[in-house]
Amino acid sequence: MKVRDIGEQGLLERLQRFCPPEIIGDDAAVLVTKPGESLVVTTDVLVDGVHFSEVTTSAEDAGWRAAAANLSDLAAMGATPLGITVGLGLPGEVSVSWVEELYQGITQCLQKYNTSIVGGDVVRSPVITLSITAFGQAHPHQIIRRNQAQVGDAIVVTGVHGASRAGLELLLHPELGQNLTQGDYTALILAHQRPQPRLDVLPILWEILSDSIPQGRKNPAPTPPIPPSPHPPLSPSPPLPISGMDSSDGLADAVLQICRASGVGAVLESTQIPLPDAFNYWLTKEKALFNALYGGEDFELVLCLPKQPAYALVQKLGKRAAIVGTITSGSKVILHDQNAKNPDQVLTLGRGFQHFGF
Amino acid sequence: MKVRDIGEQGLLERLQRFCPPEIIGDDAAVLVTKPGESLVVTTDVLVDGVHFSEVTTSAEDAGWRAAAANLSDLAAMGATPLGITVGLGLPGEVSVSWVEELYQGITQCLQKYNTSIVGGDVVRSPVITLSITAFGQAHPHQIIRRNQAQVGDAIVVTGVHGASRAGLELLLHPELGQNLTQGDYTALILAHQRPQPRLDVLPILWEILSDSIPQGRKNPAPTPPIPPSPHPPLSPSPPLPISGMDSSDGLADAVLQICRASGVGAVLESTQIPLPDAFNYWLTKEKALFNALYGGEDFELVLCLPKQPAYALVQKLGKRAAIVGTITSGSKVILHDQNAKNPDQVLTLGRGFQHFGF
Repeated sequence: MKVRDIGEQGLLERLQRFCPPEIIGDDAAVLVTKPGESLVVTTDVLVDGVHFSEVTTSAEDAGWRAAAANLSDLAAMGATPLGITVGLGLPGEVSVSWVEELYQGITQCLQKYNTSIVGGDVVRSPVITLSITAFGQAHPHQIIRRNQAQVGDAIVVTGVHGASRAGLELLLHPELGQNLTQGDYTALILAHQRPQPRLDVLPILWEILSDSIPQGRKNPAPTPPIPPSPHPPLSPSPPLPISGMDSSDGLADAVLQICRASGVGAVLESTQIPLPDAFNYWLTKEKALFNALYGGEDFELVLCLPKQPAYALVQKLGKRAAIVGTITSGSKVILHDQNAKNPDQVLTLGRGFQHFGF
Repeated sequence: MKVRDIGEQGLLERLQRFCPPEIIGDDAAVLVTKPGESLVVTTDVLVDGVHFSEVTTSAEDAGWRAAAANLSDLAAMGATPLGITVGLGLPGEVSVSWVEELYQGITQCLQKYNTSIVGGDVVRSPVITLSITAFGQAHPHQIIRRNQAQVGDAIVVTGVHGASRAGLELLLHPELGQNLTQGDYTALILAHQRPQPRLDVLPILWEILSDSIPQGRKNPAPTPPIPPSPHPPLSPSPPLPISGMDSSDGLADAVLQICRASGVGAVLESTQIPLPDAFNYWLTKEKALFNALYGGEDFELVLCLPKQPAYALVQKLGKRAAIVGTITSGSKVILHDQNAKNPDQVLTLGRGFQHFGF
């Protein structure tokens, strides 16, 4: 059965089962926000043949990845998700089951993070186009921005880098995986097909930052009858000593963007960057490092914060998290090798995988 | 200069001047919502050759119309706008000036209603695709839904119907306009190119409904320290005696959708439907009525409410607003002619201009 056989109304009716029933049937969806929280909004457009392809991505995986990318943007801002809208452009010859699998993938990812599709639009288009807008909420003083990195901050990454790019290469060229264990092969493929936005990091981060802030900067208990916030009470100023973004366009890009926005530089220690286990025996050091720095789509968080809470965060997150460098004065981002075998490199924007180029 | 000549980064930098400076440069935008307000979200996808065309729509008009359609959905829910995100898919050969004119049209419309672009995405695509998501806020007890129409309610329309469709036909076949005055010709074209979402109706509506509600249903003054709401204090239950939606898919569609969602019927008086002045001398009565009922894209509000506040609303809105019918028991929507020259007609969904069909 093709999309053209059932039309827009028929398709919308089938897709309603992926949405909470209370959002069906009005001009817009209504969401309840917590009092005093800011609204955080992000949007992504994905086009068939540009951002996903049948060769490497099933409909379910395309849906998961699109949802994960938007939830990762919310996590990068310090926001917890409220819901997403899905705008879908479809040629008439697309099968209805493909569309249902796409929505299945989207909702699987959303359910894992306790959120849902709250609205959408389905229209005819000569090319499959998926436009997702995600909404979250954040305490106004717990928003993570790119432009707050301070000289001396530690640079924390929340997990391994390079796995998604390696997974994509294995999907395109399975013969490259001959020397991989089955477990490592599967882990790399899954890293590409089912990336995990790091919303789990936020409550840990707030707890650590609340502990590490001097008592004078904490507020007294909130005055009733304002409902108690789920976040620790924090002073309205100065803001939290944190800066960051996600690594959707690569670890190098994230550090460079934070440094540019904050007017600082950085030194990265190449040996400290957590890599997938398989990279130790499967890739050269150069290729492993290239994947980690420029591969992109790992959807980890790159956070800059003072050394003490940085150590505490890495300890709480476990061995895959690490301090990978330090924020410096100046404007250069330098890649240093502790083993001193390689000279320092200056990293620049635009060396990575440019999937958005016109 | 083509989009491919400057790439995604170059284009984004040029488009930043259409956005407030504080939203630039993070993974997501942060909006401040009023305490106690609900978040209202709506999304639309528009595809070149399906929803707009160079024959009838300049880039500026396409932008205005897309923004207006989304703001109209917010108005239909009783929400005031907080902002929109714009997702744009573009072939490399599109000229940069076309994209800038599109954004010019979007921001012209948004500025008129005191809102702005708060985020977006620009990607490569084989077909121009414009995906807009709009956010608004509404008092939780002032949300207008489709499923609250009550038997005996008056059906109010906030302006003339049929003008947008007539304007589209004039753009496609200018020779049809030979007998129109210059003023009427321009008014019809503008109705199509520059529709006006009826956000102006909301404060008038809240004032009238606040006056018309028995004192026992009003709350006492809100207890401090909750900040005073800009809306009149209203009881949490029962909800406001109002139902409605916008007439983006035609007046007949709006009445049918409201009746279906509310489990009621309606009688519409064909002679009471406000038409553009030109229809009196330019179209047959049948064609005029067809445009009004099925033309679509007039972006007026269709509201069902008790007779007393309905009269007050029409009086406040001026002569272009009117009571066009009554909600009845049963499920049929009947078109009646007061002059009794024509037999009653039963209106059905799907007779209109099906621009979303696959």
